[in-house]
Amino acid sequence: MVATRQMRPRRRTSAEVQKLLEGLADSVVTAARNGEVPSFDIPVRTLSNVSFNKKKRIIELGKNTTERRFFDLGTAKKFMQTVLVADALMSLQREQVTTSLREIYYRTKHTIKGTSENTFDDQDESDPIIEDLEVTLSLLREELRVRAKSWGTIIGPITLVDAGDTVDCTRQGIGGKTVPSIVEPGYVDIKRCTADFVLMVEKDTQFSRLSEDKFWKRHNCILLTGNGQAPRGVRRLARRLHDEWNLPVYVLMDNDPWGYYIYSVIKQGSISLAFESQRLAIPDAKFIGLSSADPEKYGLPRNVGIKLNDTDIRRAREVAGYEWFQKKEWQDEIKQMLRSGLKYELDALAHKNFRFLTTDYLPRKLKEKDWLD
Amino acid sequence: MVATRQMRPRRRTSAEVQKLLEGLADSVVTAARNGEVPSFDIPVRTLSNVSFNKKKRIIELGKNTTERRFFDLGTAKKFMQTVLVADALMSLQREQVTTSLREIYYRTKHTIKGTSENTFDDQDESDPIIEDLEVTLSLLREELRVRAKSWGTIIGPITLVDAGDTVDCTRQGIGGKTVPSIVEPGYVDIKRCTADFVLMVEKDTQFSRLSEDKFWKRHNCILLTGNGQAPRGVRRLARRLHDEWNLPVYVLMDNDPWGYYIYSVIKQGSISLAFESQRLAIPDAKFIGLSSADPEKYGLPRNVGIKLNDTDIRRAREVAGYEWFQKKEWQDEIKQMLRSGLKYELDALAHKNFRFLTTDYLPRKLKEKDWLD
Repeated sequence: MVATRQMRPRRRTSAEVQKLLEGLADSVVTAARNGEVPSFDIPVRTLSNVSFNKKKRIIELGKNTTERRFFDLGTAKKFMQTVLVADALMSLQREQVTTSLREIYYRTKHTIKGTSENTFDDQDESDPIIEDLEVTLSLLREELRVRAKSWGTIIGPITLVDAGDTVDCTRQGIGGKTVPSIVEPGYVDIKRCTADFVLMVEKDTQFSRLSEDKFWKRHNCILLTGNGQAPRGVRRLARRLHDEWNLPVYVLMDNDPWGYYIYSVIKQGSISLAFESQRLAIPDAKFIGLSSADPEKYGLPRNVGIKLNDTDIRRAREVAGYEWFQKKEWQDEIKQMLRSGLKYELDALAHKNFRFLTTDYLPRKLKEKDWLD
Repeated sequence: MVATRQMRPRRRTSAEVQKLLEGLADSVVTAARNGEVPSFDIPVRTLSNVSFNKKKRIIELGKNTTERRFFDLGTAKKFMQTVLVADALMSLQREQVTTSLREIYYRTKHTIKGTSENTFDDQDESDPIIEDLEVTLSLLREELRVRAKSWGTIIGPITLVDAGDTVDCTRQGIGGKTVPSIVEPGYVDIKRCTADFVLMVEKDTQFSRLSEDKFWKRHNCILLTGNGQAPRGVRRLARRLHDEWNLPVYVLMDNDPWGYYIYSVIKQGSISLAFESQRLAIPDAKFIGLSSADPEKYGLPRNVGIKLNDTDIRRAREVAGYEWFQKKEWQDEIKQMLRSGLKYELDALAHKNFRFLTTDYLPRKLKEKDWLD
C-alpha cells in the first residue's frame, strides 16, 4: 500500500521567529518609554498547570501564567536572563546556525561588569529560560534552532532529503541513516514513503537484529530507533510519518515500568514538556510489546525474567495511577507484571533463538494485532 | 591529496572461526576419550598480565595463562560456562547472524535439569567468558559476530559499502551515515576515500556544528563520532582508515581528565581490553584539543571553565601516573590543568560565537599543528 500524503504542518519561517523574538524585545522598550515596568507573562510549567486532555489524548499545558518584572527583587535576575537568552536565540536566526542548550548557556554566561555576579551560574538556570521562551512564543525548540542532544537511526522504504541530499533509506546497509536532531520540514523533507507502518524500537540490539534480517523489507515498514528513550528528532519524525503519510506507529520496548512510561511519552507527551505534546505526541501509537502476557505466550521461562525490585514495584504502581493509563487493558497489563514479580527484556527473546524476534515474535504480534493502545 | 590504499588486514573467515571453536571442543572430547581431565588454558586478563609496550606504543596482554579444569571444584562451573558460550558462538557462525553480549547471556542461561542451579545468574558471568574465548582463540569480538553496544556517525569524502549498499558519505545531509557495530571487511568495505585526515569528535554537539558548517568539505576530512566514549565500530573504522588509507587521526575531546583518558584508549588501547589493542589502538593518533593552553590562547574567560572537584584532581593525578602519559608535553598539559584548577568543555567555545570551533579554533589548530602526541 502506498500511503498518500496528507496535511503538512507548516514550520514557522525564520522571519516569523525573528518577528516573535523582536516583539518580545519591543514590549520591553515600549514599557520603558512609557515609564511602565517592563514585564513578561510566562506560562506556568509546573504540574499544577499540566493536565491530560481526554479528547485530544495528550498531556497539555493549562492557561496559567506568571509575571516576570524587571523592577522586582524576586524576578529581576530572571528577567535579565530572559532578555539575554532571547538575544542569543535571535543571533541563531540571524546567523542561520543551530546550537545546543549547553552552548546557549556558555554563550550567555558572563560576569556582570563591576561585580563578581555571573549572568548564569549553571545550565540549570538557562535551560528553563529557553523552555519559557518556547512556550511564551508558541515555538518548537527546533524552530528556535536549538538541537536536542542525541540522534537516532532510520532504515526502510523512505526517501529523505537531509540538508539538500536525497537519501534512499533502503540503501543504507545494516547501519542505516542517522536521524539528525532537527527534522522539521526544510531541514529534513520526506520525498517518498511507501511503508505500511513505523516500528519504533527502544534499543539498538533489536534494531540491529531487525536491520540485519531486513525485517523492514519483508514487512514493508520503517525501523526507527533512538538508542534508549527516543530523542526529539526521532519522535518528531515518527509523528510526521503518522500525520503526513498516515502511517500507524508501533512501539517496541522492554517489559518493565520504564518501558511503559517511555511508551506513554511517545504517545501522550511528558509532564515536563507538556507544551510540546501538540507537536511531538502520537496519541494513536500502539505498544506492540514486550507485554506481560508474552513470556507465557511465547514460551519464555521464568528464569530469563528479572525479579522486580522495590523501585520497579513503586514505579509500576505510580504508572498505573496516571490518568492516561486508566484503560482496562493497561491496568491488567501492569497488574499482571506485579503479580508475576518479574520484568523481561526484549533481549530475552534470544533465549529461544537469535532471530526469534524477526521470525516469530513480531510477525505473530502483527498478524494477531496483539498490541496495547 | 588522494590517499592511496595500503595493506588490508585480513578478516578471519567464518570457516576459520568455526575451525577454531571446533578445535576447542575437540580438545575436550580427546581428553575425555584418553581418560584425561578436560581443561582449557585461558590467558590471564588482570592488571598483573597487562603492560605498555614502548616499542609498539600499545597496551598489551602478557603471556600468563590459567588452567580451567572440568574436574576441579573451583573451576568446574566456569568450564561448563565456557563450553556453553562456545556453543552459542558456534551457532552464530552457523546461522550467519550477529548478536549482543546480553543476548548471549540469555541464550546460554538455563536451569540445570534436576537442580535449582542456573548456568548463569548474571551477565557479569557470561561477558568475561566471551572475552576469555576471544583471547584464547585470538579472535576479535567482531569475528565472533558479537556486536558492541552503541553506534557512531560518519560524514565526509568516503564511499562505504555497508552490507552491499554503496553509500557516498558526502551525500548524507547533516545527519550523516550511521556506523554499524561491526565494520570488519566484508561487513563494511571502504570503496573510495579522498580525505586528508580523520577527525574523531567526542560529542555530538561538536559533530553537529562541524557537519552543519560542512567543515569536512573545506578541510577535506572525515568526521567521526561515537557520542561519548568511541564505540568499537568507530575505533575500528578510524584504525582501518589509518592503516589502509594512511590517514592521520586527530581526536577532539573536552579538556578534562576523562577526555585525556578516552583519548589514550583510542591511542594505546585500554587495560581491560588489552588483548584488542593490536587491532583497535591507533598509536599515531593525536590529541588536537581542547588542551589546557587553549583557553588563554583562544581567549576563553575563566568563568566558562568548570572548577576541578576532588574526583577530577584524583583522576588527573592517576592519568599523569600512567606509563603512556610520561612524555613531557603530557606531563606539562596535566600540570597546567591542575595549576589552573579548571577544566573546559568544547561547548565553551560557543562563548566566543556559535561557529568559533569551525571558523577559528580548528583551522588555527591544524595550521599550527598544535596537538599533543
